[in-house]
Amino acid sequence: MAISLQPHAGMRTVPGRKLAGRLDGLYVAEADHFVTRAADRLDLTFDGIAGDHHSGPTRRSSSREPWYPRNTVIRNERQLSIVSPEEMTQVAMAMELPELKPEWIGANLSIAGVPALSMLPAGSLLFFEGGVTVKVDAQNAPCRIAGRSIAEHAGVADKDAVSLLFPKVAKRQRGLVAWVEKPGRLTKGEGVSLKIPEQWIYDV
Amino acid sequence: MAISLQPHAGMRTVPGRKLAGRLDGLYVAEADHFVTRAADRLDLTFDGIAGDHHSGPTRRSSSREPWYPRNTVIRNERQLSIVSPEEMTQVAMAMELPELKPEWIGANLSIAGVPALSMLPAGSLLFFEGGVTVKVDAQNAPCRIAGRSIAEHAGVADKDAVSLLFPKVAKRQRGLVAWVEKPGRLTKGEGVSLKIPEQWIYDV
Repeated sequence: MAISLQPHAGMRTVPGRKLAGRLDGLYVAEADHFVTRAADRLDLTFDGIAGDHHSGPTRRSSSREPWYPRNTVIRNERQLSIVSPEEMTQVAMAMELPELKPEWIGANLSIAGVPALSMLPAGSLLFFEGGVTVKVDAQNAPCRIAGRSIAEHAGVADKDAVSLLFPKVAKRQRGLVAWVEKPGRLTKGEGVSLKIPEQWIYDV
Repeated sequence: MAISLQPHAGMRTVPGRKLAGRLDGLYVAEADHFVTRAADRLDLTFDGIAGDHHSGPTRRSSSREPWYPRNTVIRNERQLSIVSPEEMTQVAMAMELPELKPEWIGANLSIAGVPALSMLPAGSLLFFEGGVTVKVDAQNAPCRIAGRSIAEHAGVADKDAVSLLFPKVAKRQRGLVAWVEKPGRLTKGEGVSLKIPEQWIYDV
């Protein structure tokens, strides 16, 4: 994990461990549904992706937060879904599918080149070359609804089996959820450097 | 750390490791300065403590974020400063002071009974008995400005020495910064239960 980089344009010094990757894909959910479509650039505000299904200052709790009554209004820290193409390939292989597209599971950003992206801890900062910063809230949990979407898009025969398979094989590989620390425009292909919280840095 | 508790009123099931404490003190910074004054109750919105110096949806970056030009507008994840009376006692002893009041260093919440409170990782949730939830953003770093405030309030002779001592001895004991996930009223003395992110749970 000890990849050291030059700070990119617009950044100054970044103390602590450095990792880096590339913004391989951008996706937006314009309809009232989590499935996304590819875009070349996206404008981010403090609420998330402008016009996206998951943008907003607050959100309503779901089965992911069993400690609240359903539909409790809480701060929206799940603005962006981030996946890794390397992890998507691993999951597709484990599901015996030729591919798993980020759009099928509602990803907004696909970031290539970061080992074990899904394991980046809460509080990790992602600095995009164009000036946007997002902060990791948590590892995302694979669910049956996303599994169902994969089954439908991949056109498999046994949709129930594939729906159930996803939560099993994609654990710790389904990416992250994050929120916008510094708004701006994301452009496909731009570089991203990462900073993980100091508590997670054990070797120097 | 394996303290197991009954969920408190207003909570439902909380999976994962449980820790708990008590809201020992509440403090607000009403003036244009970080020093706080004690209060019996405080109303929290999604922006932090209503009327507090550090409340707001965004904030301006400082020397804490050397990767941004100073005064860059970023999301305000540092709404609340949380300290532990046990850690404050440790720091006071190390500084050879009879006491260190949370007000002197601009704390908003003092939470007793949580071992190594400052080491709670980013993403930890604090569920207050009255219904408020706050989420840990990061460990707070002790600085010379807070050190200077301690020196002045404690009335020591060598203010420079005490100002410099604080950042040295309070590292990893200066508490946390956090933001409001679920607004409401905090009342002095209420219970708080905690949930740390699943990635940090190694033993069961």
